[in-house]
Amino acid sequence: MKTHTILMPLDMHLHLRDAVMLETVAPLTAYSYSGAIIMPNLVPPVTTLEDVKAYKQRVMAAVPNDNFEPYMTIFYKNYDKAFLESIASEIVAIKLYPAGITTNSEGGVSSFDIEEMRPTLEAMSELEIPLCVHGETDGFVMDREAEFMPVYELLAKNFPKLKIIMEHITTKAAVDMLDKYENLYATITVHHLLLTLDDVIGGMMMPHHFCKPIAKRPEDLDALLTVALSAHPKVMFGSDSAPHPQHAKESCGCAAGVFTAPISLQLLCEIFEQYDKLDNLQAFVSDNAQNIYGICPEFKEVTLEKRTFVVPEKYGSVVPMYAGEAIAWAIESID
Amino acid sequence: MKTHTILMPLDMHLHLRDAVMLETVAPLTAYSYSGAIIMPNLVPPVTTLEDVKAYKQRVMAAVPNDNFEPYMTIFYKNYDKAFLESIASEIVAIKLYPAGITTNSEGGVSSFDIEEMRPTLEAMSELEIPLCVHGETDGFVMDREAEFMPVYELLAKNFPKLKIIMEHITTKAAVDMLDKYENLYATITVHHLLLTLDDVIGGMMMPHHFCKPIAKRPEDLDALLTVALSAHPKVMFGSDSAPHPQHAKESCGCAAGVFTAPISLQLLCEIFEQYDKLDNLQAFVSDNAQNIYGICPEFKEVTLEKRTFVVPEKYGSVVPMYAGEAIAWAIESID
Repeated sequence: MKTHTILMPLDMHLHLRDAVMLETVAPLTAYSYSGAIIMPNLVPPVTTLEDVKAYKQRVMAAVPNDNFEPYMTIFYKNYDKAFLESIASEIVAIKLYPAGITTNSEGGVSSFDIEEMRPTLEAMSELEIPLCVHGETDGFVMDREAEFMPVYELLAKNFPKLKIIMEHITTKAAVDMLDKYENLYATITVHHLLLTLDDVIGGMMMPHHFCKPIAKRPEDLDALLTVALSAHPKVMFGSDSAPHPQHAKESCGCAAGVFTAPISLQLLCEIFEQYDKLDNLQAFVSDNAQNIYGICPEFKEVTLEKRTFVVPEKYGSVVPMYAGEAIAWAIESID
Repeated sequence: MKTHTILMPLDMHLHLRDAVMLETVAPLTAYSYSGAIIMPNLVPPVTTLEDVKAYKQRVMAAVPNDNFEPYMTIFYKNYDKAFLESIASEIVAIKLYPAGITTNSEGGVSSFDIEEMRPTLEAMSELEIPLCVHGETDGFVMDREAEFMPVYELLAKNFPKLKIIMEHITTKAAVDMLDKYENLYATITVHHLLLTLDDVIGGMMMPHHFCKPIAKRPEDLDALLTVALSAHPKVMFGSDSAPHPQHAKESCGCAAGVFTAPISLQLLCEIFEQYDKLDNLQAFVSDNAQNIYGICPEFKEVTLEKRTFVVPEKYGSVVPMYAGEAIAWAIESID
């Protein structure tokens, strides 16, 4: 039977939430990944040293195994340099949300005034703290990411030593930005390597494929596949796996987010094998992230096997992507 | 209090379904409209003289008042001229669905072979039976209507005496076709005068705004408003009101269709008043249709009043658009 081994897989964009939800979902990522960047958009968001330490402890307490590292982040606000110095060793990045753009982002940035942001972003540059950005405007849903590109350009030009991560990119426009500025990087989710808007509303309406940014056009999917499958060195895997309880997904006014944590590595194998690019998966799902963030994860060796795996209908209260459907790869062993 | 009177309002595109659903929804349209074109996509579709007569009888039996005319249609297939002659007096149009494109359209046209269709379409031209078309390809969801334009052009050029109605148009591309061919007409729904894709998936996911064709971009909405508000003489109101039971709309894999029958006239008043075009509503919602179809509806005078009306949460098992929300106009009297 065909197998494929990944060393130290990393999920560079993960939502774990808190309390019972944290306890449900954290073990699933910790099982198959060496580490993950934990997003700070709790209610209220993670913004202080105490918040970070306490949230990290809660994450660790929810994880049964010790070979998983939660890479912590704080929610972007304008911070002073003394604060950033005090927190630099506890976090790997700061996450910027435009205000109100996605789940629990109400306290985010409402205008990109570079001079107001300059002290914070210059301190981050000096302290080598990357800036992770949810890059969407409040415009028409299909244009939000493309419309945000000038903000990325403004940030990249004004802060050339700041590592800027375009999170969960979904468009050819964002892919095209990657080689334009040395300090721009990107994460890509697994669902954005599989879906277009057709899979959300093209046939029936599919709430479990509904996320922000929304899946875009076929030509956008092609552009994302091209950089991911070639393991472009500025691109990393970040699942953006986002758990919501079933009732919040399957009701009127369904919440945005696709839950892929327990199946993301298997789906990546399926995609990379389908395009005969399995050799590039190691870079996409670990090596690039290690280079970009300068992190050295604990050893973990995950072997996947090409055999049918039927995705469970639920994990706790959360319905995963492809619930009840067969996928082509399964996790065989973890050392 | 501000009032506005409409004479003989007509809904030129309506789904009534059958049985209990028919009994639930038919009285709602019959109450405020003088007549409506009844779509034939039952299971199985309406295709014979017996089907039409029997369905019309069931519709009439479901309607409590006698001042409502159901204008019947049959489902497009290639029919011979003798059959069309026999049925011409019982129908006002034939409805063409590309196969599998929307609810109950599986038996539709799978390729637009003009020579195969020629005998039917020439007979329809001679007998002055209009062709109503659901104009979508099976392409990417945002492109399906625009991609269908060459089919409209092919039909319009090859059958210059056939009246072709582009049903429920949603794009600037379709609006732009109107003045290009003398024999092309269009219906526009009320929900496509209110929604863009943002209202379907831009914030939360809204199943009661999910329909086919999907609501498109802001510039498409602008183009639709322009021709509707100006009461372009080739444009008619057709609600495409499509009832589905609540469980089919609010579950995974939600069905396509917006139910507006009981509030469409009120919403039209609200839109036309908002743009200071109330004087054009009579043409959009009745006169243009009378001219295009050559029909003379029974007298009905509907007076609407500008006062808050809270839309009921449900009509039978069906949740209407704007359920529980306040709209600005209400029906005051019907004579």
